[in-house]
Amino acid sequence: MNYRAVFNIIGKVLCIVAVFMLPALILSLCLREWDGARSFAVSVAACAALGLLFAMMKPKRKDIFAREGLVTVGLAWIFVSLLGALPFLLSGAIPNYLDCVFETVSGFTTTGATILGDVESLPRGVLYWRSFTHWLGGMGVLVFLLILNPLSDKNTGEGMHLLRAESPGIKASKLVPRMKDSATILYLIYIGMTVLEFLLLVIGRMPLFDAVCLTFGTAGTGGFGVLNDSVASYSPYCQWVITAFMLLFGVNFNVYFLLLIRKFRKAVKNEELWAYAGVVAASILIISVSILRRFDTVEETVRAAAFQVASIISTTGYSTADFDAWPQIARTILVALMFCGACAGSTGGGAKVIRIIVSFKAARRSIYKTMHPNSVRIIHVDGERLDDATVGAVSAYMLVYFIITAAAILLVSLDGKSFETSFTAVAACLNNIGPGLGGVGPMENYSAFSWLSKVVLTLSMLIGRLEIYPILLLFTPSVWKKIHR
Amino acid sequence: MNYRAVFNIIGKVLCIVAVFMLPALILSLCLREWDGARSFAVSVAACAALGLLFAMMKPKRKDIFAREGLVTVGLAWIFVSLLGALPFLLSGAIPNYLDCVFETVSGFTTTGATILGDVESLPRGVLYWRSFTHWLGGMGVLVFLLILNPLSDKNTGEGMHLLRAESPGIKASKLVPRMKDSATILYLIYIGMTVLEFLLLVIGRMPLFDAVCLTFGTAGTGGFGVLNDSVASYSPYCQWVITAFMLLFGVNFNVYFLLLIRKFRKAVKNEELWAYAGVVAASILIISVSILRRFDTVEETVRAAAFQVASIISTTGYSTADFDAWPQIARTILVALMFCGACAGSTGGGAKVIRIIVSFKAARRSIYKTMHPNSVRIIHVDGERLDDATVGAVSAYMLVYFIITAAAILLVSLDGKSFETSFTAVAACLNNIGPGLGGVGPMENYSAFSWLSKVVLTLSMLIGRLEIYPILLLFTPSVWKKIHR
Repeated sequence: MNYRAVFNIIGKVLCIVAVFMLPALILSLCLREWDGARSFAVSVAACAALGLLFAMMKPKRKDIFAREGLVTVGLAWIFVSLLGALPFLLSGAIPNYLDCVFETVSGFTTTGATILGDVESLPRGVLYWRSFTHWLGGMGVLVFLLILNPLSDKNTGEGMHLLRAESPGIKASKLVPRMKDSATILYLIYIGMTVLEFLLLVIGRMPLFDAVCLTFGTAGTGGFGVLNDSVASYSPYCQWVITAFMLLFGVNFNVYFLLLIRKFRKAVKNEELWAYAGVVAASILIISVSILRRFDTVEETVRAAAFQVASIISTTGYSTADFDAWPQIARTILVALMFCGACAGSTGGGAKVIRIIVSFKAARRSIYKTMHPNSVRIIHVDGERLDDATVGAVSAYMLVYFIITAAAILLVSLDGKSFETSFTAVAACLNNIGPGLGGVGPMENYSAFSWLSKVVLTLSMLIGRLEIYPILLLFTPSVWKKIHR
Repeated sequence: MNYRAVFNIIGKVLCIVAVFMLPALILSLCLREWDGARSFAVSVAACAALGLLFAMMKPKRKDIFAREGLVTVGLAWIFVSLLGALPFLLSGAIPNYLDCVFETVSGFTTTGATILGDVESLPRGVLYWRSFTHWLGGMGVLVFLLILNPLSDKNTGEGMHLLRAESPGIKASKLVPRMKDSATILYLIYIGMTVLEFLLLVIGRMPLFDAVCLTFGTAGTGGFGVLNDSVASYSPYCQWVITAFMLLFGVNFNVYFLLLIRKFRKAVKNEELWAYAGVVAASILIISVSILRRFDTVEETVRAAAFQVASIISTTGYSTADFDAWPQIARTILVALMFCGACAGSTGGGAKVIRIIVSFKAARRSIYKTMHPNSVRIIHVDGERLDDATVGAVSAYMLVYFIITAAAILLVSLDGKSFETSFTAVAACLNNIGPGLGGVGPMENYSAFSWLSKVVLTLSMLIGRLEIYPILLLFTPSVWKKIHR
């Protein structure tokens, strides 16, 4: 293990986070929230100090491999979370450090699960930081580093391993040959869409501060809001805008890139996109029918169904209605959407639509193979052949994913909460959604769990956001052994 | 598709079922239950008539392939269930034919889920038939046919395809080269263990009739009892005997065969057996601790924990305590055991321990491969190399299994029952257990579900018992197409 290279990168990441904390500090000063300002000043200093200390470790060898890439990403996210939690603790917004870490991890992983019952009482600077963690975590802080890091050109291996470890999907998606350019393009698209949503919300007369925070929460598919009733009290127009952008941020960013470079035909030839659209449309339809009598007008019904479906499948987690009180079929569909998740290469979480597609195709192939044991059948996605190694990797991923889900539910069950609460708490955290059903429904929060459950759920959020391996490897002893080459 | 061969075999199976119905007819006559006797007489006649009609279709070609084998098994089980349900309907024990089919499928698939609230009011002949379906379904009616069928020697392909389609596991297990001998040995071991349990229960002063029925229920890992409180009111000795035999019938019968031919070393070198034992021991320990204060003595605590664990992991479904009222950790462990299930090649259901083992090994390999992308790593089971095709088949099986679970939960949710009830009803039926939690807990039954849910759950039981493909193929259009060779 090339420890020096790993910590060198983590140091740079912490410096970036320190810089990104400055706007919250400035906002706190402008609003004269002195407690908040003091806490951000100390946090920025701590982040920068530790960051510079780590960054001073100059690696002897510059090469890093898949293993180092995964470990770097896993450790970097843990460090960022531990330090990003400081403003919550120091400002007194959340008295318990474990709760602060839970809230911060929930932010960076774009989960949006909260231990706070009353968010409206928080200082605005802290609320801004809470929502900003979504935006930064959505596209990834290491991807941001790639834009700045001069190393990434000389040594494409390094950048590739980091991008692969932090970006969701079954294949690492490099838009253009140079890593630095890929990362820049991703962030430019991200920033462009963020600005667009912000403007549309402001046009809808949403207060500026709310518009900023809600846009961050939508862009990262996070789910932290600034009002206790999430998005329910904003205008129908604003709810529709947020619905649309939740869905848009759940689409693979490759599609936007292809649209930008005018490769329209290739952009629409995306199986995942169509499956995603189909699932969304079908879910909205079925849920609308099931809740028809609960609202006054058809528009209201469809809006409630569309908002909740978009919120869950994009793994954002905003709500405009208490879907925990909806008919069981609507609730079950929403739980199924939790596991499905958004498209690969988006800011959304979950298993990703593409993995579900490949799983279905692998399942269909296995039915065919049972009939014709000696047959050879190839799986195609987007008209291209998918090699057996990728199919095997997807199957293995799904198995690990179900094993982790089961283990986490088992540990959370120790709290003695209902099966529904334990099950959906794990589903909502592992898939980076936020609210679940029952005791963690959209009107509830996660404060009632024991410290063990909070640790398990915090790890689940990280495992979900980083797609399992970067976190799992940290607990694998053989990773830490020296390899003799 | 060689339709004539398929229906020829189904005809023979129906004739066997007609013969196996005779003891129930005789018992009804002896006990002067005239309604029951009349219903069995009609049922035997109907079974035999349809069976002979089908058996008269002489196939032009005798060869059958994997596809025909799977379709034969799937269709045979459906015909057997439809006709096996007649005694319930004709005797008036269950007024609704769909409920009769549900109960019969639950019997043959060794699920033990019931729509009856009060079983004690049933005629004894009907109760006997209800329990006997467990015994016949446990080892399989087509495996029984192989003992009698003179074809099976000339054409080993036919027997192999039938045994493979009806017996659970990842590889078809042929004990000896001749199919007929393999089937005979399996049934001899089965009968031997059945007789042994019966004798031990009689020694424990259990009434003869109860001992017969409960032994059938244990041997097939079914779960139908003759008292409304299942096994709770029998003596501790009888409960321990049933606990032991539930676990024993959940072991791969290959192990017993190896013991019989004195290959002790090979018998104990069975990874699945040890994993099964380990999971059982750990579950009993944890559950015992969690329910410590609910019982007067330690023996009572351990007995309750051991009985319920043995009942769920072997997928029998008897109960001596209302585990639905136990602490959440105990309930979650029991739900996890539902999906785990017993060993391959046993009469138990569920995903099977060996598939969980292979899944874990495939998961571990995928973690390793993430670190070392170009590595080749081979999975071993019982010290032998497992080829990639088998690993792929297991992964695909697990994916199909989860997809079906999700789809069934979705459909059952239409009833509007709680998430816990819908989820565990599907888990308990698909894994052939019987009781679940909440609305289908050990003190409840399945009568409250809608007709759609009952159909879904009935199909789930068949899918679980026959390991998915034989039933799934019946709904695959391409199976019914003619293949031009």
